[in-house]
Amino acid sequence: LTRGRRPSTETLAGLPVAVDAVGGDHAPAAVLEGAHAARRDGTPVLLVGPPERVGDTGGLDLSACTEVIAMDEDPAQGVRRKKDSSLVRAAELVRDAQASAMVSAGNTGATMAAALLRMGRLPGVLRPCIATPLPRLGGAPAVLVDAGANAECTPTMLVQFAQMGAAYATERYGVSRPTVGLLSIGEEASKGTPLVKETHAHMAGGAGVDFAGNVEGRDLLPSPVDVVVTDGFTGNVTLKSLEGALRFLFATLLERFGTDERSRAAADVLLPYLAPVATEFEPDRIGGAMLLGVAGVCVIGHGSSSATAIANAITSAYQLATGGLVEQLARAVAPTEAPAPGERAVVGE
Amino acid sequence: LTRGRRPSTETLAGLPVAVDAVGGDHAPAAVLEGAHAARRDGTPVLLVGPPERVGDTGGLDLSACTEVIAMDEDPAQGVRRKKDSSLVRAAELVRDAQASAMVSAGNTGATMAAALLRMGRLPGVLRPCIATPLPRLGGAPAVLVDAGANAECTPTMLVQFAQMGAAYATERYGVSRPTVGLLSIGEEASKGTPLVKETHAHMAGGAGVDFAGNVEGRDLLPSPVDVVVTDGFTGNVTLKSLEGALRFLFATLLERFGTDERSRAAADVLLPYLAPVATEFEPDRIGGAMLLGVAGVCVIGHGSSSATAIANAITSAYQLATGGLVEQLARAVAPTEAPAPGERAVVGE
Repeated sequence: LTRGRRPSTETLAGLPVAVDAVGGDHAPAAVLEGAHAARRDGTPVLLVGPPERVGDTGGLDLSACTEVIAMDEDPAQGVRRKKDSSLVRAAELVRDAQASAMVSAGNTGATMAAALLRMGRLPGVLRPCIATPLPRLGGAPAVLVDAGANAECTPTMLVQFAQMGAAYATERYGVSRPTVGLLSIGEEASKGTPLVKETHAHMAGGAGVDFAGNVEGRDLLPSPVDVVVTDGFTGNVTLKSLEGALRFLFATLLERFGTDERSRAAADVLLPYLAPVATEFEPDRIGGAMLLGVAGVCVIGHGSSSATAIANAITSAYQLATGGLVEQLARAVAPTEAPAPGERAVVGE
Repeated sequence: LTRGRRPSTETLAGLPVAVDAVGGDHAPAAVLEGAHAARRDGTPVLLVGPPERVGDTGGLDLSACTEVIAMDEDPAQGVRRKKDSSLVRAAELVRDAQASAMVSAGNTGATMAAALLRMGRLPGVLRPCIATPLPRLGGAPAVLVDAGANAECTPTMLVQFAQMGAAYATERYGVSRPTVGLLSIGEEASKGTPLVKETHAHMAGGAGVDFAGNVEGRDLLPSPVDVVVTDGFTGNVTLKSLEGALRFLFATLLERFGTDERSRAAADVLLPYLAPVATEFEPDRIGGAMLLGVAGVCVIGHGSSSATAIANAITSAYQLATGGLVEQLARAVAPTEAPAPGERAVVGE
């Protein structure tokens, strides 16, 4: 496997987004619907999947393959064994400059593995990470990195996540000078695990990001910083905790609203006032997590992605790819490492 | 540091709970009010603090000292230097069997340090941990351990947290056979950090607890297991994330409720239906976090503890101390330490 190329943004305009037609709980119906919506909005789309599983595409182009990596399949094995799967083929389309980006709401680990193994890492990137939006009512979301790609991290990896997360906040959400916070258990530099303390020292020493110090769990909603950096274990647990808590609370409120006629009548009046809040926390609006650090744009949708979520994911994948996200990420990471001449990236561990 | 004695529960009945009169954001007023309420409910109370800072105790006994460890003071230094502080004195009262338990809403780290250094650890306990309730609507809360005492953990420490957490769930919430889950990023034993994977193997191999496997962040509210085990870094971040998210959402809902006259009128009807939900998530009802693994009962209140929270903390501290919690904790952990030939672990069966 070779180090990922630096893609040339100009060549991407007009290239379709490769969309895994068979990934996600509601595939292929929701994927097809979302792909059509994105296409109507002017985004070129290329479905990828086994024709017999995809069915009638309604006129959308389909890149045929023969295999599917299931939602619960082992990611590394799936990618290794199923070389003609929709995920592997989609990643190859990006690698071969036949697609501008890839989108899947399927097996998250397999999507990451396919993108990493087929596209390769950007020069200097130790590990790709997942960036996920943290909603801030009425404003641009903050970005959480790493939201789950790497359970084990080193300080240098976290610094790179910060650099890539900041570049992403700029490209995706238009934040011109993103502030970066390090997730810990107290504001003081002395708080946290050795990983956090060392990372704090690196970032405070100037790592090309606007470091605002440590942030705590209670700061995530709404986040005072534009980028929150953490290891993928903590990021995954935290994000799922937040999702679970919000879902539980919304469900509980709705249940109470339906207690009796009196409560239902009052709820009918109030729901329109509350709908915007629910919408802000809706994964559909947000359009998926982004894999940062591979040589291409790869958007990973929630397994439960609706057609709207898929459409948003496709549209933003295309905008980011043609807008030069990958070049910005490569630039953001470059200064921290002076790779020896001829150094080879080793992927596939 | 000496190993803590095994306390004799019988000697504790009738002994007052040592209450840090100067700890917490609303001390001493809220502490005094809470102490009076606990006293009225039949719990003997002994305030600890500098008389000039405490003021009129309204007839409650006061153990006078001269120093106070501030909320933002370095815990280790504070305890080392301020030997006549309310926290150190309260811990000594428990150590010397002049108090049944201690309660503070002050500096969390200093409270832990004072309890650990003055009471000592229970035999075999590697590190004390903090147990915090995770609300489950209408049922006994689940218990999260470690909620923040130890940023760095070993698998053996996590196993002990599980054992102590289970004993605590039984003593505190009457759960007769608590199930234990390990917080990770997937259900499979292969998921997570090396710490999590090794701990999983230990617990699956029989550690005297009813191990239900891994749980994820989305499972915390409401928790399907009675005890959720994690390291203190992840526990702290997760718990604060949940607290922050719930506070943010409640505040946002209240704000929307007050949008205009129409919404306010509907909200007036609905609020009584929602109040029980808010109450369940109110720290006041819950009565503080518990330090498990020291040779005495030590309850750590939220810094923002109200009088009600203080009263609940004092009452439950007394009940747990006189009910034999510390003996149960010692018994729960004992089997992991070089069991004598023929000795069998009996905890949790």
